[in-house]
Amino acid sequence: MQINMEQMNNVDDRYRAHFINSLSGYKSANLIGTADSNGQQNLSIVSSVFHLGASPPLIGMIVRPHSAPRHTLENIIETGYYTVNHVNAAIYQQAHKTSARYDKSISEFEAVGLTPDVRDTHCAPYVAESNLQIGVKYVSHQTLVINNTVMVIGQIINVKVPEVAIQQDGYIDIASLDTVAVSGLDCYHATHSLARLPYAKL
Amino acid sequence: MQINMEQMNNVDDRYRAHFINSLSGYKSANLIGTADSNGQQNLSIVSSVFHLGASPPLIGMIVRPHSAPRHTLENIIETGYYTVNHVNAAIYQQAHKTSARYDKSISEFEAVGLTPDVRDTHCAPYVAESNLQIGVKYVSHQTLVINNTVMVIGQIINVKVPEVAIQQDGYIDIASLDTVAVSGLDCYHATHSLARLPYAKL
Repeated sequence: MQINMEQMNNVDDRYRAHFINSLSGYKSANLIGTADSNGQQNLSIVSSVFHLGASPPLIGMIVRPHSAPRHTLENIIETGYYTVNHVNAAIYQQAHKTSARYDKSISEFEAVGLTPDVRDTHCAPYVAESNLQIGVKYVSHQTLVINNTVMVIGQIINVKVPEVAIQQDGYIDIASLDTVAVSGLDCYHATHSLARLPYAKL
Repeated sequence: MQINMEQMNNVDDRYRAHFINSLSGYKSANLIGTADSNGQQNLSIVSSVFHLGASPPLIGMIVRPHSAPRHTLENIIETGYYTVNHVNAAIYQQAHKTSARYDKSISEFEAVGLTPDVRDTHCAPYVAESNLQIGVKYVSHQTLVINNTVMVIGQIINVKVPEVAIQQDGYIDIASLDTVAVSGLDCYHATHSLARLPYAKL
């Protein structure tokens, strides 16, 4: 069926959110770990982390300013560091619960039962149960005037990953790490590899 | 193992690209259909399409200015329209081949064996073999100074999708459409749903 967007002006906001969020395709599932300058920890699931470039190694993320990751954004700007942790099949249900609107004085780590791992010179906690943990240094953020979402850009400073998952050419087999994908607002997916395809040439 | 990014300054660019591209997690797989003002068609696979907002319905995309989607970006700016088409398991090998550096006078539709469907008032072709086809109106683009990538923002104007895939609350079951996910530069994945989880409340 063909749906023109004008037809959707009449549907309720929740239906519209489910529908539009499904359109872009699969999304990454990551937990963002932060702390404020007093060491109060925060953990928030986001499905908007995206690759931005390899050299320098950059990662982007879209944050809705009035949604649950608000404390995350405040902490990132306040301390200059955050962690990005792949959500895997063993923890996706706990990860999803971090999207509830916890008070800033509550650590979502404790609330959902995940383990903070503070092991760097910065205070941003990693998620011990995640099989791929990334330390990120805040670079910049900008508000996109069209809808007041905020794009956050960070530089990858370190990665913790099982050595066995790194293939000879540098590719990380994230399916072997049980990393999950998201579609829409709330659907989680396991994957299996169809193939790696050779670099396309004429 | 823990890898600090300084250690990666010594590895070759290709290894680094595979590694860093794997870090963000699963990515969407879409074919971008465009035409120039003479009707010359272009088709390009991108793994950087992301959800930007539901109201208005916005979709973002990161384009590397010197990579294969260069003609895509030129056409989008020239004509103001493009299409975003989910890559599915039946066409991912053909879709991947569109990343080769074809001359602008060559239509990748013909070169890889996919069928252009021009059915709107605009000239941007849809991919007939795709199970979820989105018509998009160009809104804006900006060059990100940090690495000269270009972020393109568009507004979704229509969607073609099998009615059976749309669930009662508006969620589109993209796994049932055989939509694939990408990891790294070249790995394609089929998925199966683990669960849809309820809206997280305290």
